[in-house]
Amino acid sequence: MINASIITIGDELLIGQVVDTNSTWMAQQLNKAGIPIKRRVAVGDSWNEIWNALDQESKESEIILITGGLGPTSDDITKPLLCKYFNGTMVVNEDALNNVKYLFEQVFKRPIIGSNLKQAEVPDACEVIQNKRGTAPGMWFEREGRIFISMPGVPNEMMGMIEEVIPKLKERFSLPFIIHKTLLTSGVGESFLAEKIKDFEADLPSDIKLAYLPALGMVRLRLSTSGYDKIVVENIISVQFQKLISLVQDHLVTVEDEPLEQVLGKLLMAQNKTMATAESCTGGYIAHLITSHPGASNYYKGSIVSYDNDVKENILHVSSQTLSTHGAVSEQTVKEMLDGVIKEMKSDYGIAVSGIMGPGGGSDTKPVGTVWIAVGSKDLINTQKLHLRFDRMRNIQVTAIVALDLLRKEIGELSGFSYQVSGKPHSDT
Amino acid sequence: MINASIITIGDELLIGQVVDTNSTWMAQQLNKAGIPIKRRVAVGDSWNEIWNALDQESKESEIILITGGLGPTSDDITKPLLCKYFNGTMVVNEDALNNVKYLFEQVFKRPIIGSNLKQAEVPDACEVIQNKRGTAPGMWFEREGRIFISMPGVPNEMMGMIEEVIPKLKERFSLPFIIHKTLLTSGVGESFLAEKIKDFEADLPSDIKLAYLPALGMVRLRLSTSGYDKIVVENIISVQFQKLISLVQDHLVTVEDEPLEQVLGKLLMAQNKTMATAESCTGGYIAHLITSHPGASNYYKGSIVSYDNDVKENILHVSSQTLSTHGAVSEQTVKEMLDGVIKEMKSDYGIAVSGIMGPGGGSDTKPVGTVWIAVGSKDLINTQKLHLRFDRMRNIQVTAIVALDLLRKEIGELSGFSYQVSGKPHSDT
Repeated sequence: MINASIITIGDELLIGQVVDTNSTWMAQQLNKAGIPIKRRVAVGDSWNEIWNALDQESKESEIILITGGLGPTSDDITKPLLCKYFNGTMVVNEDALNNVKYLFEQVFKRPIIGSNLKQAEVPDACEVIQNKRGTAPGMWFEREGRIFISMPGVPNEMMGMIEEVIPKLKERFSLPFIIHKTLLTSGVGESFLAEKIKDFEADLPSDIKLAYLPALGMVRLRLSTSGYDKIVVENIISVQFQKLISLVQDHLVTVEDEPLEQVLGKLLMAQNKTMATAESCTGGYIAHLITSHPGASNYYKGSIVSYDNDVKENILHVSSQTLSTHGAVSEQTVKEMLDGVIKEMKSDYGIAVSGIMGPGGGSDTKPVGTVWIAVGSKDLINTQKLHLRFDRMRNIQVTAIVALDLLRKEIGELSGFSYQVSGKPHSDT
Repeated sequence: MINASIITIGDELLIGQVVDTNSTWMAQQLNKAGIPIKRRVAVGDSWNEIWNALDQESKESEIILITGGLGPTSDDITKPLLCKYFNGTMVVNEDALNNVKYLFEQVFKRPIIGSNLKQAEVPDACEVIQNKRGTAPGMWFEREGRIFISMPGVPNEMMGMIEEVIPKLKERFSLPFIIHKTLLTSGVGESFLAEKIKDFEADLPSDIKLAYLPALGMVRLRLSTSGYDKIVVENIISVQFQKLISLVQDHLVTVEDEPLEQVLGKLLMAQNKTMATAESCTGGYIAHLITSHPGASNYYKGSIVSYDNDVKENILHVSSQTLSTHGAVSEQTVKEMLDGVIKEMKSDYGIAVSGIMGPGGGSDTKPVGTVWIAVGSKDLINTQKLHLRFDRMRNIQVTAIVALDLLRKEIGELSGFSYQVSGKPHSDT
């Protein structure tokens, strides 16, 4: 099996200034292509650290993907280091030079300065991977059967290059099929699921791996295997996956590797129905989740983010009586918010949430983490109260997931959707 | 200098199923405490890989932080591995056992099963770090001057433990002060900034490090240094930071390490003004950015996410004439959306956006990436057209940032805010 290591370079990764989403994306792409990632390493903008990482990872893996440190500024040292590492000399690459000129003249419309032109220099020991989205060329080095691929840390530039790198790697190596099958459950904990499927797990063929991935009150179960005969591999995993599905049927959300909001979107599309949201404490996050996916406009009307109580009254038509008697965080308020948004947006279904996300704003009767959710249609409303115990961002995320899942269950039940739903809804564990 | 390595464990990190936000957060906390992170390594749920990572990182760093692999299921092997690595025997920890019982009886309100009780077992070679937010105890091991700290991969459980770990590390080592000073610029590229401050950079004392952090059309500049005398260190870096501020003044957004939406929030609060948003293509993402921060309700009224044109007409009062003549993605539409949301939400300022985020929905005259933004008040509206070339999510993010920055500039200029704003607004480079 051919393995890859990912080396990400940059002090910002080590002081926690940015989240490393590049590694996640590269790992997805490489796995799809049949190249498992053995290790991911992040090091700072330090000559010794980068050099050591190259030495170490080339002992671990056949393919070493490197991102970062290719910018035009002096803290970017990856290129001179790779030049030295592969005993090369710097030369101007004509294609890269033309690309830099084109970008500055035609796209950025800014004058070129010296450091921009230097971007077109590369070590003569490498093959250049052209960068269609920026000025820094990528570099492909080979030594002793190891391939080293250096790419910029700017995500969309790196992504553009990976598209060219993967076919080249496929040509170079005989790669297996890697197959993952994933299902998503809600309403039960990881250990409960494990107990439920322990016999299945014990009987799993040794080349199939089972993983539990708990997140935001839901648990994803993943089966993985690999092999050189695609059909055989697919058959083997499908048999096991069907068994797994039948064991967790009562808690099943989807048998695809897709997020909850997409499952809900598909349900709505299948019925030619629409939904809308009225968000107080989640502040637009539910709308953002839904609209992150292309095609959301087929079933999503929009959201009224009523952060201010005036907005609840004036746009969502929550009565001032309700707000003064029950408060903004109450069952009555979210019911009226739901009625209001369904009416105003002319949608079939809706979600309304109101709560106290923290760190401030709590009281004895309504502590931080108190949330009311209402979901449903003009004919049927379900409500749920949550008591969350996380930080602000996680309280927002969990509220969004619970609300989306509640509506998914309601629509699924009404439509006789094939997965049964049962058990109590998510708690904040 | 005492260094730390972070080892994160889990196949999900290597197949790209989750983004590793734990490392980012831990890095922030450790840096604040004076412990720089030397390396971050992610490995799968594999006995050999974890063992090797422990061996390697203990050669690199004095402190090794480990997360993941402590769950109750069979793919979680960190605890038995650490038991063996430190030649220990598993014993029941009474405090951890009481914690598991408490959580199941009082919080989760679910029956305890065997695998839950096993969570209370730990190697006798470790000191236990109690987990107030979950069932898996943390473990503190020491060997040959190295400290190994194993924590769950569940973010909020890990976060709770780090709060206890850091004071213990501070007691144990004499740690320096690490200081970062960060400013944020907009409207100019990384290489342009580098050219502008090249003399400053050349003259920087060798113990002060400068980093360029470009993100979403903005560039953050960071100075870092460390030392044992806090006052001396603060003085040294302040002098350089003031020089840097004066050099990039024309492009300055903030001199704090804070996101753009917080800068805008502070501006509004200082003037006792409010804002609202009308979002089509960003689908609630601008609202989400603003409401991610505690206290947003002081200046933020809410958002109307008008994903459907009916919502633009009925709630934002965009005229049907405008929509049919100019289309939903047009200057006239975003102007009317802005007017509508300011009026409906009774806010002083507003942002309105409409665009085509892709991958579908483009046309010859309005290709994917076409976005119109309007910002301002009932008295003054600024508009801007963007031509973005990223994927859907990045198009959403860049639109949000450009829109927020445009409003920040308008309010800053009106209020005579001390940072000058100049140059053309962000382009999509």
